[in-house]
Parts: sequence; structure tokens; C-alpha cells
Amino acid sequence: MTLAVAGTLMQTPAPDRLTVVDAVVEVDGTGVVREVHDRTTDAGRGAAQRALEDAEDRVDLSDTTLLMPGLVDLHIHAPQWPQLGTGLDLPLERWLFEYTFPLEARYADDDFAVSVWDDMVPTLLSNGTTTAVYYSSNHLDATTSLARACARHGQRALVGRVAMDHPEGTPEWYRDTTASAGVDASARSIEAVAALRSPLVESIITPRFTPACTDDLLQGLGELAEATGVRVQTHCAESDWHCGYAVERFGTSDARALDRFGLMRPRTVLAHSDHLTDFEMAMAADRRAGVAHCPLSNSYFANAVFGVRRALAAGTGVGLGSDIAGGARPGLLGVCQDAVTVSRMLEDGVDPALGPGQRGVPDSRIDTVTAFWLATAGGASVVDLPVGLIEPRRRFDAMAVRLDRPGGLIRTWESIDDDARIFEKVVRLATADDISHVWVDGRQVKPGRIPVPDRRRQH
Amino acid sequence: MTLAVAGTLMQTPAPDRLTVVDAVVEVDGTGVVREVHDRTTDAGRGAAQRALEDAEDRVDLSDTTLLMPGLVDLHIHAPQWPQLGTGLDLPLERWLFEYTFPLEARYADDDFAVSVWDDMVPTLLSNGTTTAVYYSSNHLDATTSLARACARHGQRALVGRVAMDHPEGTPEWYRDTTASAGVDASARSIEAVAALRSPLVESIITPRFTPACTDDLLQGLGELAEATGVRVQTHCAESDWHCGYAVERFGTSDARALDRFGLMRPRTVLAHSDHLTDFEMAMAADRRAGVAHCPLSNSYFANAVFGVRRALAAGTGVGLGSDIAGGARPGLLGVCQDAVTVSRMLEDGVDPALGPGQRGVPDSRIDTVTAFWLATAGGASVVDLPVGLIEPRRRFDAMAVRLDRPGGLIRTWESIDDDARIFEKVVRLATADDISHVWVDGRQVKPGRIPVPDRRRQH
Repeated sequence: MTLAVAGTLMQTPAPDRLTVVDAVVEVDGTGVVREVHDRTTDAGRGAAQRALEDAEDRVDLSDTTLLMPGLVDLHIHAPQWPQLGTGLDLPLERWLFEYTFPLEARYADDDFAVSVWDDMVPTLLSNGTTTAVYYSSNHLDATTSLARACARHGQRALVGRVAMDHPEGTPEWYRDTTASAGVDASARSIEAVAALRSPLVESIITPRFTPACTDDLLQGLGELAEATGVRVQTHCAESDWHCGYAVERFGTSDARALDRFGLMRPRTVLAHSDHLTDFEMAMAADRRAGVAHCPLSNSYFANAVFGVRRALAAGTGVGLGSDIAGGARPGLLGVCQDAVTVSRMLEDGVDPALGPGQRGVPDSRIDTVTAFWLATAGGASVVDLPVGLIEPRRRFDAMAVRLDRPGGLIRTWESIDDDARIFEKVVRLATADDISHVWVDGRQVKPGRIPVPDRRRQH
Repeated sequence: MTLAVAGTLMQTPAPDRLTVVDAVVEVDGTGVVREVHDRTTDAGRGAAQRALEDAEDRVDLSDTTLLMPGLVDLHIHAPQWPQLGTGLDLPLERWLFEYTFPLEARYADDDFAVSVWDDMVPTLLSNGTTTAVYYSSNHLDATTSLARACARHGQRALVGRVAMDHPEGTPEWYRDTTASAGVDASARSIEAVAALRSPLVESIITPRFTPACTDDLLQGLGELAEATGVRVQTHCAESDWHCGYAVERFGTSDARALDRFGLMRPRTVLAHSDHLTDFEMAMAADRRAGVAHCPLSNSYFANAVFGVRRALAAGTGVGLGSDIAGGARPGLLGVCQDAVTVSRMLEDGVDPALGPGQRGVPDSRIDTVTAFWLATAGGASVVDLPVGLIEPRRRFDAMAVRLDRPGGLIRTWESIDDDARIFEKVVRLATADDISHVWVDGRQVKPGRIPVPDRRRQH
């Protein structure tokens, strides 16, 4: 069914560029944007009118609603959804063994898994997350049911069964029994996801992170990626502990070890990566791998802040990740705000006892335009998906944000706000309740009401 | 009218203590908590039942709604409400002269002022901010109308006319003409607020910050505080620029200069203060002045992070401030999350190029329990108001937070969540839409719907 959406289109085609146009977006029957008609020009106005008349489905957004590209979340641990917002007071190793592994192990129960997916996927969609790059659990069935849930609810997704087999880095009650069993299960997961024949969902090869994987598993997954061309995701150089571990085990950095195992490839998503050196950022750029910057979890587990400006200068692709549940926010708009905030702290430093000169890293700050670009076009280009911008030939993944919701926080004031300020207010103040429409592949997917999960505690 | 509220009471009587009890809170006709009946004991159950029967007004919260103390926001720039969420990309001096002073100057128009107050006050109430410590503008009338708006909408507030007269630190078109005119206007503002005879609203003496005030004005306001016993608020040692300015002008630190002028007094609110030395923190403790910690604006304007643990160890009172609009969040729950986050960044540091040893300040982290204590009991004790905890003899300022709102983000899961995790989820994930009830002085004040301000832009 063809679609035409009329409204004020606000997006960021470049890290330093915000564009605003009164437009009619024309979407063909396959969910691809055919044309964006600018109603501020005479020619555009006529074409826009015709597009509205010809479309089988029409949405005319009010003057106080903005049309924006949907958000691309490059790093989500789906099975950690039930612990969203909790357990962030421990160091990473303890957080994994005491909170996270026991929870992830429960996804051996596919009924439990489905009840979580059916709450999480619609909730993320209603927050504007039109593309999600998921770590699932170690389980083949739960991973397939996550892919099925994304297809059913209409979310674009890359879904990865988590491969992990290291006898020291993982608990024996939650791991692949051997390296070859892990590679085999990952290969079967690729087939199971492909068998769904969903245009929205693809598989992604997912070695958890080097401390959780033996050399044989890392090597085998690198070969699987080479043989199948399927994307790879993993955590890279996240914390002091992680980096020290890599040097001790591999005699080189975590990034170089991943590269040796053939895992730093085109479209590989390197989560966190805040400890990458300039050389390693250049290496990632050369391999056409990109980074999922997770600003909030940087402050909880990373011991440092990822330098977005440094990465962009090196030509490395960068997008944003919520890092659910190492990050405590489900919506990427809040993550945009965190990305701006941590970049300012990286620039200025934190310790007042140090002189201004020694405290921070000059020229590290980013603004909300750059942050939103990371959350849309930047993330889309890391995984090479034709979304993140509303322009001809890209899929129509979009959201509509209200500026005037009673009970909402966004206010625009005559004679105070210009477009740049309204954009900043939307990024900083909008919540899921302000997002009135969400489209993926030209289809509206924001549910009127998020189902209350069966397992919700009644107390 | 007497009131009884039944529900699960969750609060933080100490920085490291969370208490949860199934209770009935009995409130007398003057808005004071008479008794908190614990329904988990036989005796308590009986008394709770009688309290419910005797009360003229009853609220029985559902099993999935929590009763919590209302939030005490120690630092809000009321006239900056229209620029909430914007303009944070400039250094403080430019932000003031290019964004903030021109906006604040508009409050010479009292109609404009009232339209802002009538949007802001109910919005903050609906976010759970039951006590607000406001910087108003430099205008006597707008300040009185802010106090009137707080009384009308039922928000507990300290309202200060901003005194500022320094020919270099303020624009000629927005300042007190002379020091004595500034002191006189501040004295008249105290009388105007007192004349409202509201039990909820008091005046607070408000020298903007030392760079905006001449010595005569600072001296005169110190004397006014001494003569009237009215509280004082000002910004203290916020940024490198501010601290350097103070040393250059006074030959001593900003904190010591404020002390010299008689402004560091019992119940004085020192906003930011992130550059205080240990000696100055001890001095503030000795004077019984407290700090309004504004974590988000720390990262935008302060060049460093306030050390909450260091301050508490020194015996200095600390609460939280949203710093609207230097902070981009209206609700203090979000500010609690920011307080935890920046404390982690202070502890771990930010620059990956530095070794772990040189990067941060050990033992700086706080958790959500401490953050919520700052936002409630901690803040209340800084300004010495009998709120912040729901216990006998304190005023009943409270909020009810839903755990199960369709479309909301808070989830609780059988066999995963305990009370501590549910508390953490509420602090990190609740939005105004999850707050179903807000009481101040025993009176329900959360409006069903926040009025759309007249000046809202129609575009």
C-alpha cells in the first residue's frame, strides 16, 4: 500500500547539519521513499498535493508534530530487559556473574523468552527504535523467537545468538559446551533466522567478548563470518579490566586480537571501544568496522569515555547504543542527551583538584545535532542499512513527535524558539508518550498500548 | 480535612538506607503526618484500619503503586523555563549574555511572567517536585507573581528576587541600578511575599553570584539576611572561570568571599560548589550552609564534578538541584540518575589516555539510594523544612508512582525483582506520566492535565 506523510521533516544528514522542511514524503508499496516533496517551493507544493491525492494511505501531521527518522540502536542485550535500570553498582565482572548470567540462563525457557520479547519489542518501537541490533542469549530457540517477535511486531533487527565457551570467562551452567558446538549453534541460528524469510530481520554473529570465548571459538566465528558474509558484533576494549585481560592473554590489544581472528570486518559492530588508540580507530576504519558508542554505560563499566570526535576524525563509523541493560534507558533520545553530556565531561574532565589544563581532552564535545546523527544516519551506515534518513531510495523508517502533548515537557515559545532550539528540546525532552507514530518499512508499528507482560509481578 | 493514604511506602531516611513498609499514613487537618501505621504488624493493622475509617478523605493506592516522599529541588531558575533543554553548548559567560539575560529581562512584562509560572509550577508538581527553591528574575513584580503562582497551585517554595548590579558582570538593560536600590528591592520582595500570607511560600535573598554583584550589594544583602533571618541562596565556586574571577577580584576564593560578606549562613543554599576545597566544605558545614548539587549542569558549565561523598564526610548538607535551565531535566528523578552517573565518572575519570591510577577520584561513587536521599531528606535539611520523609510531625509532601502504567517503562518481574531493584527502577525509569498523585501539605495538587501555555508557538 502506498503512503504519503505530510509534516515538518527534521533530520540530520551530516554530524554538523540539521535540515528542516515542510514536506510530503511519498512512500511506495514496498516501503521505500519514492520522493520528498518540499512544500515551500511552488513546484514542490503541486507535486506534494498530487502525492497526497494518489496515495492509498495518508497521514497529515499537525503543525505541532515533527516527522523524524527512526532511531537505530546498535547495542541491546535483549535478555537483560527485565533488569533494565538495575544492578549498575557493581564492577563488570561481578555484574555479569551475579546479575546477568543467571538471568540470561533463564532463556532456556522459551515461554519466558517470548513473554519478554513481546514486552520489549513493542516498547522499544514505541520509543522510536525502528532498528535494533540485538545480543540475544546463548540459546538457539530463544534467539529464533526473538527474531520472530521482531518480524511479528515490525521492528527492523539484527539478531545474534551469543557465543561463549570460555571455561574461566563464563559459568559452566551458561555456555557453549565446546568451541565447535558454539560455531555450529551460531551457524544453525543463521539458518533459523533466514528461514523466517522476514524482510526486516537478519542474523548477526555474536562472540560475547574475548574473555568469554576461547581462541578456537573466536577463530571459528571469524571463518563463519567470512564464509557466510553475515555481520559480526562483539564488545571491544570496554574497560581497564577488559583491556588488561586482552594484553595478558593475547600479548596484544583486544582490538588487534579481534582483527587477528578475522572478526573486524566490514559492518562489524564494536560495542563501547572507549579504550581504542588512534591506531586502532584507524584500523577499524580501514576494515570498515564501526563502533556502538554507549555513553551511559561508559560511566558505569568502561572507566573512561569514548571519544566520538576522535573516531569521526579517524574515519571510523560510529552510532549509538543503549546497551540495555548496562545502560538504563530504553529510548535513544535519552541516549543522545547522555552522549552530549559525557562528551562535555570528557572535554572538561571531572576532578576539580586537577588544574583545568590536566583535567580533560580538548575538542571532545559534541552537540545534539551530532548525537542525533549518530542515533540515525551514523548508526545506519555502521551496519549498512538503507535507513536513518528520510530521502529517496531509503526505507521509510520514521517517527512523529508531538510538541504539544498535554502533560508532556516540550514547550515552544513564540519569539524565543527557532528550529534549532525546537530540535534540541525534542531530543532532550521527548519521551515515548510524545511519539505519536512510528513507521518501519512504511508500515505503522507504534501500538496504541504496550501489552502488560504476563510475568509482570503482582505484589 | 484529615487524610489517610494506604500503600507501599518507600523512602530513604539516610543516605545508605532504603525502607519499605506496607503502611497507612494518617495526616491531620493541617497537613502534618500524625502517624504511619505499619500494616505488617497486628497492632499496626488494627490502628491502620481505624485511621482509614476515621479519615475524612481516603486514598487506597493499588498494589502496583508506591508512596514516596515528594522531591525537593534546591535550584531552579524559574524565568529560564522557556529555554529548558536548549542553549547548553556555550560557555557560561556567553550563555548568560546571549541566551539567559535577554530572556530574563522579558519578565518586566508581568503578563508574560504569569503565563510562564502557570505552565511551570503545575508541570514541576506533576513531576513530583513538591518543594522548589527558585531564582526568579531581577523584577519585583514577576517575583511576587511567582510566589503567588506557587501558593495558587499548591507548591512549597522559596522564591528569590535576583539581585545583580555589577556594571561588568551584568548588562546595562538588566540589573539593579545601584547597590542600595538592589538591597531595597530585595527587602521589598521579602515584604511582598510575606504579605501573601501563604503557609507554603517564603522569600529567599538571592545575590545572583559574585561576578554579577558589587561588594556593596553583597555586603548589604548579608546585612539584610542578618537583620531579617531570611534564607540566602547564591551560586558558589561553579566553574574555573568563576573561581579564577573570585581570586582575582577578592584575593581569596569565592566561598571565603561569600563568608566575608555574611552570606554563608545557616540554611544558605550554595548552588553547584563543585570547586570547594575540603577546608571550604568544612567551613560551609560550620556555618550550617548547604550545597545544591546540580549534576547535569556540572558537565555543561562547571568543568568538574561536585564530590558528594567528600561533602557528606565533611558534614556539609547536600541536596539536589535541577538547575533549570542550565540543567535540561525538570524532574528530580532524572537528576538522581545523573547524580549517580556523574559520581561514577568522577570516581573512574574520563580520559582513556591516562592510566587508571591518574584518571579519577577514588570512593566518589554514590548509588540511587543516596541520590534519592539527596533529592528528599537531604535537600529538606539543607533548607530546614519539615519535609523529605513521611514520618510523624513532618508535613505530608508526597507522590504516588505507578509500576504498571500501560506505555510506561517500569517493569517488575516475579522472581527477579526485590524491593531494592524496584526502587532503582522507579528512580531511573519513572516519568511524570507514571506519577499518579502528588500531595503538598496533605492536599492533592497533581493536576489532571497541564495547561497549555498561551504563549505556546503555533507554527
